[in-house]
Amino acid sequence: MSTTALDRSLVQRLVRDALTARLSNGYAKADGRVAPKLVVNVSARHCHVTQEDLERLFGKGHQLTPYKWLYQDGFFAAEEAVTIIGPRHRMIPNLRILGPCRDHSQVELAFTDAIMLGLDVPVRRSGDHRDSPGCYLLGPAGMIELSRGVIRHERHVHMGPSDADYYGVKNGDRLNLRIKSSCSAVFEDLLCRVAPATKLEVHLDTDEGNACDLAHATHYELFK
Amino acid sequence: MSTTALDRSLVQRLVRDALTARLSNGYAKADGRVAPKLVVNVSARHCHVTQEDLERLFGKGHQLTPYKWLYQDGFFAAEEAVTIIGPRHRMIPNLRILGPCRDHSQVELAFTDAIMLGLDVPVRRSGDHRDSPGCYLLGPAGMIELSRGVIRHERHVHMGPSDADYYGVKNGDRLNLRIKSSCSAVFEDLLCRVAPATKLEVHLDTDEGNACDLAHATHYELFK
Repeated sequence: MSTTALDRSLVQRLVRDALTARLSNGYAKADGRVAPKLVVNVSARHCHVTQEDLERLFGKGHQLTPYKWLYQDGFFAAEEAVTIIGPRHRMIPNLRILGPCRDHSQVELAFTDAIMLGLDVPVRRSGDHRDSPGCYLLGPAGMIELSRGVIRHERHVHMGPSDADYYGVKNGDRLNLRIKSSCSAVFEDLLCRVAPATKLEVHLDTDEGNACDLAHATHYELFK
Repeated sequence: MSTTALDRSLVQRLVRDALTARLSNGYAKADGRVAPKLVVNVSARHCHVTQEDLERLFGKGHQLTPYKWLYQDGFFAAEEAVTIIGPRHRMIPNLRILGPCRDHSQVELAFTDAIMLGLDVPVRRSGDHRDSPGCYLLGPAGMIELSRGVIRHERHVHMGPSDADYYGVKNGDRLNLRIKSSCSAVFEDLLCRVAPATKLEVHLDTDEGNACDLAHATHYELFK
C-alpha cells in the first residue's frame, strides 16, 4: 500500500477530527439566530464506480466494504482502492473508492494530481462529464477504461433545508467561504447542494485545503 | 529526468507566459492613476543553496548555469537540480535550484509536496527557519544534510517603490489578491517586499495556483 495514500488519509482524518470538534463557527445573524454547525472537510482524490465497473475491477458479485464512514450518513470510504493510469503511463496507486456504488463511474482529482498524471481536467459538478478526459482504472480482477469522467469536482457545500433557510439560499445557489489561518483565503462561489437529511458540510479539494492551511484554521464562515 | 518535474516546469511557463501577456489588470484609482502592470506567478517547489553547499553537491568550483531567466532581473532557474529526501526515504527528484547562490540554503515546498515527503513545514518568509524541518539533498557529487530550512514560503508580492506608493504600502505591509476564474478566490495578507529595481510580481505556490485555477484566470487585482 502506498505510504503517500496512507498519509493523505491520515491528514484528512486529522483535519476532519479537528474541525468537527469545533461546534460553532462563531457568528450569529442580527436576529439572534445562531449559525448552524459548519464542518469544512477536504476530499482527497477518489473515485465512484458503478456496480458493473466494480465487478470488472474486483470480480463477479463483489460488494464494497466500508472502511471509514464519512460525515454524511450512509456514505463511506471503501476498503477497495484502485490504481489510476493516465497518459504516458503515469499512475497514482491507492485511489480510494467511495461508496455506495453510483449510476456513473467518476474520478475526482485535485489539479495537482491531474497535472502529475498529465491530465487536463475541467471543473465540474458530479455527473457532469462534458469535455472531461478518461483514464484507465486497475483493480485486482481487471482493468477498465473510462472514456471520460475525470474531473475536478467544484467546491461545494452540502446542506439541509433548514441550513438553506438560515443562509437564504436554495439548491444551486452560491456562497463564499472565508478561512482564517496563517494562510487566510476566501473561496468564492461554492455550489449549494440542498437535500433532506443532509448535514452542513463544505467539501474542498486538497489543493484548496492546503492553500489555506485548513488543518490549522482558527475560524471559518459561509457568507453571500 | 522526472517527467513530473518537467510537466510542472511546463505548466509554470505556460502560466507565466499567459499572464505576462496581460498588460493591465483593468482597474484604475479614483484619481485616474492607472494600476501598474501586475504579474502573478506560481513558484513551483525549488531550493536555494550557498556556494559551499553547491560545491558539495556538484563538485569543487562548480558554478550555477542559468537555464531560464525569471521575471525579476538577475534571477534564474538553474540547470542544476537535486533530489530531496525526507523522512522514511521518500523523495522528490529534480528539485530545481534557483540562482544566484545565497548566504543560506533553503527549500521551498507547497504543502502538497511536504505532505508527500512526510514533512511538517511551517509558513515562513525567506531566511526565517524557526521550527522548520531539515532534509537531505542529493546531487551528482554528494549528499548534504540541512538541519533545517525546509519551509512553505509565505505568499508575497515583490514591488518597487513606485508600486508601493501606488498601493499605499511599505515594505512588510500586507495586501490581498483577488483571482477571478472558474475557481475564484481571494488570498489574504500577501507580504509586501519592496525593493529598488523590482518589478511588481506576486508569488503563489502550486497549491494556491491550482486552488484558484490561475492558468485560466480572467482577472486579478491587489487590494488592501
